[in-house]
Amino acid sequence: MGAIEMVEVLRGPLAESCHSGHAVVCDATGEIVKAWGDPHLQILPRSSAKMLQALPLVASGAADAHHLTPQRLALSCASHQGAPLHNTEVSAWLSDIGRGEDDLICGPEPSRDTSLRHQMIRDGVAPRRLMNNCSGKHTGFLTLTKHLGAGPDYCCPDHAVQRAIKDAFETVTNETTPGYGIDGCSAPNYISTMHGMARAMAFFASAETRGDTLSRAAARLTRAMIAHPDYVAGEGRACTHLMRAAKEPLALKTGAEGYFIAILPDRGLGISLKITDGATRASNAAIAALLVSLDVLDADNPEVARFLNPDVHNFAGLRIGEIRPKPGVFT
Amino acid sequence: MGAIEMVEVLRGPLAESCHSGHAVVCDATGEIVKAWGDPHLQILPRSSAKMLQALPLVASGAADAHHLTPQRLALSCASHQGAPLHNTEVSAWLSDIGRGEDDLICGPEPSRDTSLRHQMIRDGVAPRRLMNNCSGKHTGFLTLTKHLGAGPDYCCPDHAVQRAIKDAFETVTNETTPGYGIDGCSAPNYISTMHGMARAMAFFASAETRGDTLSRAAARLTRAMIAHPDYVAGEGRACTHLMRAAKEPLALKTGAEGYFIAILPDRGLGISLKITDGATRASNAAIAALLVSLDVLDADNPEVARFLNPDVHNFAGLRIGEIRPKPGVFT
Repeated sequence: MGAIEMVEVLRGPLAESCHSGHAVVCDATGEIVKAWGDPHLQILPRSSAKMLQALPLVASGAADAHHLTPQRLALSCASHQGAPLHNTEVSAWLSDIGRGEDDLICGPEPSRDTSLRHQMIRDGVAPRRLMNNCSGKHTGFLTLTKHLGAGPDYCCPDHAVQRAIKDAFETVTNETTPGYGIDGCSAPNYISTMHGMARAMAFFASAETRGDTLSRAAARLTRAMIAHPDYVAGEGRACTHLMRAAKEPLALKTGAEGYFIAILPDRGLGISLKITDGATRASNAAIAALLVSLDVLDADNPEVARFLNPDVHNFAGLRIGEIRPKPGVFT
Repeated sequence: MGAIEMVEVLRGPLAESCHSGHAVVCDATGEIVKAWGDPHLQILPRSSAKMLQALPLVASGAADAHHLTPQRLALSCASHQGAPLHNTEVSAWLSDIGRGEDDLICGPEPSRDTSLRHQMIRDGVAPRRLMNNCSGKHTGFLTLTKHLGAGPDYCCPDHAVQRAIKDAFETVTNETTPGYGIDGCSAPNYISTMHGMARAMAFFASAETRGDTLSRAAARLTRAMIAHPDYVAGEGRACTHLMRAAKEPLALKTGAEGYFIAILPDRGLGISLKITDGATRASNAAIAALLVSLDVLDADNPEVARFLNPDVHNFAGLRIGEIRPKPGVFT
């Protein structure tokens, strides 16, 4: 089945642009509860795979050996803003494991915290690896690397860290991945299907009910994300605000190119969503609409509405349109 | 007919994202030569309508009365970078007509010239209206306003300037517009169909062959754009580089939300292209592919390839994928 029109962008009387996509909701047995579009579509989960990539960090015992706090576990799953909150914690974590910014393989990224980014421009300081949105994930990779006594090239697909991640990825998606792309941070990003990622998220959502090592790791990471939404993304970002606004426990994680996942521990449900064209404005609105339809989010909450149905303003500050979920799709 | 898949984004072995759209090629008689998707689709041409919005400036005699150079006519049709080249010329133009930056209704926009934008941050200078990408168009509006002795609210739909623009718009699209949206710069942006805008562009492309006032204005604006691609957009932008790289005269103008037009004076052809989801990376690649298929651009020219089929790099500078026209679409 083809993609479904999910989000439209209105300007004056016209729907000027439209975004299509796919979505799957899975239960704890891995069965599809509801789907839009094609559940068999192959996707790259991008940063929505970070919880999967953090599983070996916890399951191996590395997290305990290095006394990782819930904040640090949340950072290991984060696409953070590179705001002072995040930079300070990642920096301290690196120091605690005897590593430094130069050991991070992720490239330098300008901080997304406007005030810090402008301060760095004023100070003539170049973008830093520490502020790469993936620096928490990479510090997790370095922690596991140290725990395993492995070499420094922790992003190589045949490095012990990446092999452990691939194993965990295939276990929780219950699929054999056909391959990988290289992510924005240079780590391998394994291909899944829409169904596979929803199943993986349902594995996380139902993890508290099981006692095996991987399930306990998944439960701990989910709890850390839910406890620390500010560490998962940052002020102004959909993951952080929608997790805070949720009427029940919700772990939410965006990925590049219009991908999004949600974990609902109280229901044992996992959600996978992909906007075909890769637009974040649409994946934000669509995941919010899907969660409103499940009564996890309240459409009237301004913290939800700002992502579900945001106004569009022009340079003069005039409201000239809106982004909204296509009526009748998520019901 | 629905939208056609036009551009895909590859990462590793996977087409991670895909962009669909519509396109129409019209000849000087207004007939469709070739079409992809739905020629009847209603669209907002956004900044691709700037040549139409500049028609009354020339046709009224205001351009001659104020000795507008081809550079200034190109700026009246431009979405410029707010680079020093553009800011200096718009500033001088404003001064020549006895107006200033405060008379511009377009809101303030950060310069897209990185070096200037960073210098302004270092100097603690806020974004300025002068650097709004539409400041040349607005200075054209102010010039016509002065010529007509009209009031300062030149963006009101019932202002003499906007009424003249609507007249010209309906004449060259050969359609009665059903309404308008408000553009990023606060000017009304009239709705057309894909066919209507392609017909308007063919009007421009064939204007040299006719002697009426509107055609002479269209021909003069087209010549100005072709003579000064650096004033139409700026360094690093598709319009500027593709116009420079063309094997025959070509006027090219992007619009927000994935819209693009092309004018081919040697063939009397006009082109209208819309990417459904509004992505510029896709409208750049698709218009380049369409123009390659017409032998206006050479796919092997690096100045073409950088928009037709650009590499995608990550933060570490690794090539991790590419954007490419969907094979077999533009042939």
